[in-house]
Amino acid sequence: MGTESYTGKINRKMGKKLRIVEVAAGREKADLVLKNAAYVNVFSNEICHGDIAVAEGLIVGMGTYSGETEVDVAGRIVLPGFIDAHIHLESAMVSPQEFVKAVLPHGTTTVITDPHEIANVMGADGIEYMLQATEGLPVDVRFMLPSCVPSTPMDESGAVLDYRTIDSFYDHPRVQGLAEMMNYPGVIGADPQVIEKIVAAQAHHKKIDGHAPGLVGNDLNAYIAAGVYSDHECSDPADAIAKLERGQFIMIREGTAAHNLEALLPLLTEKYAERCMFCCDDKHPSDLLEKGHIDYNVREAIRRGVDPIVAVKVACHHAARYFLLNNRGAIAPGYLADFVVIDDFQQFHILQVFKKGVEMYDGKEVKGFQAPEIDPYLSNRAHDTFHVAHLTAVDFAERRPRGIIGMVPGEIVTEDQGYSDHIDVEWDVLKIAVIERHKKTRHIGIGYLQGYGLKRGAVATSVSHDSHNIIVVGANEEDMAAAANRIVENKGGIVVMEDGQVKGEVILSIAGIMSDDTLENVNHALEQAKEAAFRLGVSKEIDPFMTLSFMSLPVIPTLRLTTRGVIDVMTQQYI
Amino acid sequence: MGTESYTGKINRKMGKKLRIVEVAAGREKADLVLKNAAYVNVFSNEICHGDIAVAEGLIVGMGTYSGETEVDVAGRIVLPGFIDAHIHLESAMVSPQEFVKAVLPHGTTTVITDPHEIANVMGADGIEYMLQATEGLPVDVRFMLPSCVPSTPMDESGAVLDYRTIDSFYDHPRVQGLAEMMNYPGVIGADPQVIEKIVAAQAHHKKIDGHAPGLVGNDLNAYIAAGVYSDHECSDPADAIAKLERGQFIMIREGTAAHNLEALLPLLTEKYAERCMFCCDDKHPSDLLEKGHIDYNVREAIRRGVDPIVAVKVACHHAARYFLLNNRGAIAPGYLADFVVIDDFQQFHILQVFKKGVEMYDGKEVKGFQAPEIDPYLSNRAHDTFHVAHLTAVDFAERRPRGIIGMVPGEIVTEDQGYSDHIDVEWDVLKIAVIERHKKTRHIGIGYLQGYGLKRGAVATSVSHDSHNIIVVGANEEDMAAAANRIVENKGGIVVMEDGQVKGEVILSIAGIMSDDTLENVNHALEQAKEAAFRLGVSKEIDPFMTLSFMSLPVIPTLRLTTRGVIDVMTQQYI
Repeated sequence: MGTESYTGKINRKMGKKLRIVEVAAGREKADLVLKNAAYVNVFSNEICHGDIAVAEGLIVGMGTYSGETEVDVAGRIVLPGFIDAHIHLESAMVSPQEFVKAVLPHGTTTVITDPHEIANVMGADGIEYMLQATEGLPVDVRFMLPSCVPSTPMDESGAVLDYRTIDSFYDHPRVQGLAEMMNYPGVIGADPQVIEKIVAAQAHHKKIDGHAPGLVGNDLNAYIAAGVYSDHECSDPADAIAKLERGQFIMIREGTAAHNLEALLPLLTEKYAERCMFCCDDKHPSDLLEKGHIDYNVREAIRRGVDPIVAVKVACHHAARYFLLNNRGAIAPGYLADFVVIDDFQQFHILQVFKKGVEMYDGKEVKGFQAPEIDPYLSNRAHDTFHVAHLTAVDFAERRPRGIIGMVPGEIVTEDQGYSDHIDVEWDVLKIAVIERHKKTRHIGIGYLQGYGLKRGAVATSVSHDSHNIIVVGANEEDMAAAANRIVENKGGIVVMEDGQVKGEVILSIAGIMSDDTLENVNHALEQAKEAAFRLGVSKEIDPFMTLSFMSLPVIPTLRLTTRGVIDVMTQQYI
Repeated sequence: MGTESYTGKINRKMGKKLRIVEVAAGREKADLVLKNAAYVNVFSNEICHGDIAVAEGLIVGMGTYSGETEVDVAGRIVLPGFIDAHIHLESAMVSPQEFVKAVLPHGTTTVITDPHEIANVMGADGIEYMLQATEGLPVDVRFMLPSCVPSTPMDESGAVLDYRTIDSFYDHPRVQGLAEMMNYPGVIGADPQVIEKIVAAQAHHKKIDGHAPGLVGNDLNAYIAAGVYSDHECSDPADAIAKLERGQFIMIREGTAAHNLEALLPLLTEKYAERCMFCCDDKHPSDLLEKGHIDYNVREAIRRGVDPIVAVKVACHHAARYFLLNNRGAIAPGYLADFVVIDDFQQFHILQVFKKGVEMYDGKEVKGFQAPEIDPYLSNRAHDTFHVAHLTAVDFAERRPRGIIGMVPGEIVTEDQGYSDHIDVEWDVLKIAVIERHKKTRHIGIGYLQGYGLKRGAVATSVSHDSHNIIVVGANEEDMAAAANRIVENKGGIVVMEDGQVKGEVILSIAGIMSDDTLENVNHALEQAKEAAFRLGVSKEIDPFMTLSFMSLPVIPTLRLTTRGVIDVMTQQYI
């Protein structure tokens, strides 16, 4: 395309456009007609009836049409394809193409991803990897550029992204803006290095997503006036309304880690719904397989009394408007032929899913599609992100007193449980380490962990927020070393180790956070590894890997462990 | 600005942005604070209360603030500035700066203009003239590029605009898209020269406005599928809803020529209002002075029972969303400080108007502002658009039978009244001529006119849709020649002539359609000229100049007169 002239571009588009007009006017047959549809009209807020004609991947008209292919939907309900307004695709632990296979049966046809996780490992190359890995997929994957890599100056991430590093990505046709600006203190405090990221996004006429739980008053004004247009961190209506009435769009989040849908149902009324959309933020494999995706939110909202048309608009139209994806989120001429066919609003069984006029899910299976081509240099780089020297028990043999991080069942906050200078399995005091793995610095932060429950062996993971260093927790240093070494050997993932034997593992060799395998296989390995962890004593009240993965994130109170030691989040001091 | 580097641009914006954050957070004083405001919140659909703080021309926060300037609005209602979604500025017959002076007291802070009239005279130079003449004005004037110049192949206009001619204007920061695509038969019929204008606008990611009265069914599907996003020609709710439910935005038009507000009130309910905005299409001087502008629509809508908040949103927010003018149409952090202060919703007296935080109207007068600088070459060209040889009675001395165009009081449609071969004042059969005036072709179309009522002398105008040739109607050929010559001498305008004496005239020397004088003076001259026309016998049921100006538009039934003779609009044949 780089050699296409402007005239050439216009001519290319003319061919399609003239055919669209011929089909819409009824002079030529459509590529596809959904006959006898009852479709949600997001403009007139009602159910309309008729045929829906498709040509060149677009809806060209509703009324009476004939087509090369005709599908009689026999009065069933047709909805626009769903949009997830904010997700980190990496959270599904599979490649984007496997993710797409998993969400198509749930009616998702567009997702807005923030490649924050892989960017923490691979920097700009991580963003580029995800762009290439999503090119041409039958779910349209759009990007928001990571705004906070690393999350904090205490993090030892694989890359540091300033505004210039990400700037050239704004020219990519699938980049919609700057992702969640988590560093809200930096925005409110007018930190130039933070503000310039916003200014650059605006200079490219792009959106800027927010992340500011509980922010109020003039600080909230400052955050919004700086140019942050949305928030997905609201967990109560008052917080959401304070943001909404100052102009932010609200993404109602229902994911694996956070569940805000029920609390935010009061937003899904005529007064506020226009400014709301759905997102999941993160979706782990089992959650995707068992609950679904945005369809879950719609189904739940309707079950709890939300007007079905409002719920559907929140699931597609409003996100499309916010992200200026003006060709989707509605069933109307000129819109993408992305459809979800359901039986009725109460059961909400998804019977068929179409992407750009192609049936991608027939109620039983997902249609095959071509895998994206990834530049070999980039693919090799994504599979070679561990730069760690071989470890032995001696590397973990710290004898000075170190802080004890107290886990809280069902939460990701932690408590300060004092100090220890040795493992004490009887009192559930385990050793925990964070091993810098990007740049062979040999930095290993060591502390103690209480509340995890492990009795024997060690558990390690390279999914660790946000820098994805290796976190390992153990009842003995030998197994800690063995578990960490095994992760490096596997190029990433999760390992449960006992007496030098692998008891369970998940191989995540794309940047140490995603698998090349299918979602089902990853989920199976993950469940087996969980069982192995529980057999070694890990408390059943805890997700053995997800909870562990937050122990290194130095922005959530009270204590966290970085590659440099235990830190008090409130004072930002190493203890 | 052409020499500014990207880093320079970011730095320049940083200065403003950092100050905005400092003020919003309450660490620095605001430039302006409206204390104790009751403001319409377009997001939460309610009246909110508090101070509104402004810095760098933007709203930075609502709450409690102090400022260098504080204006206590004492609980009065503050609204976002109004937006006219579609106007031909030339219809006010004054320069843009005079237009701005006239509409600021009515709360207008943004207008979207289609320079269709001047483009018919001066082509691309006409568009450029209007861009220069609106630069930096205290009403933000945005442009849609004329899509149909000339209106029809029968027209002899001053220019022909194909997609390439207008293409470079899409890069201008105040150009929002392609203006009303009046040639809907060309779109539906897939005429490549019409479709390529749409394709080019879309290639620039711009909006395309529509104009398709009464279009229905698959033809309407084709028109919308082609890429036409709005319509302002709806005169009944069924027509509007058919378009709205297919995804078009509806501009509810209330102007000088067309009055659709009352008929379309059913749209101003929760079900439909989100997709509606206000426009006037055209506004003649007396109408602007007597009725007002978008404020008239809001006031009338409220008086007729529309929820005031809905009416206000239709007057500002929805147009901003449609045109992707994302920094206006709301009172919220980051939005332009464009305010209208009113007493209450019932009286709806406008007390103050602010543009970008500057009080431009204090309830009594409009604050002075600098006139835009217009390139001298372009200004000279705009004042030299008549290329017509001196005319004499002989030029109008046609003796063959010619069609009689029958005027219909109060309407712009005409009737076929047969033929005549001479003027017959007793039977109200006058001679009418259209004189090509752009290219010295000496083309003069001649016909007869019934229903105008003139008894003596002649009336001529260079405001004549859409090509703005000279239309002259007379009781004798000598006065017809004298009136036309006088218009050429004046470089454009309106002339009432009797026995070679000027009885009334309006000088419109900018492209023959706009005056350099003030709106009040133009209106005064216009009213005097009307009186003179009535004194010569013109029927009082007819606007002597506006009605005349439509006699050359060969798209409205039944008969029209072009520079080549009388045409039957239905058959498109000369009779």
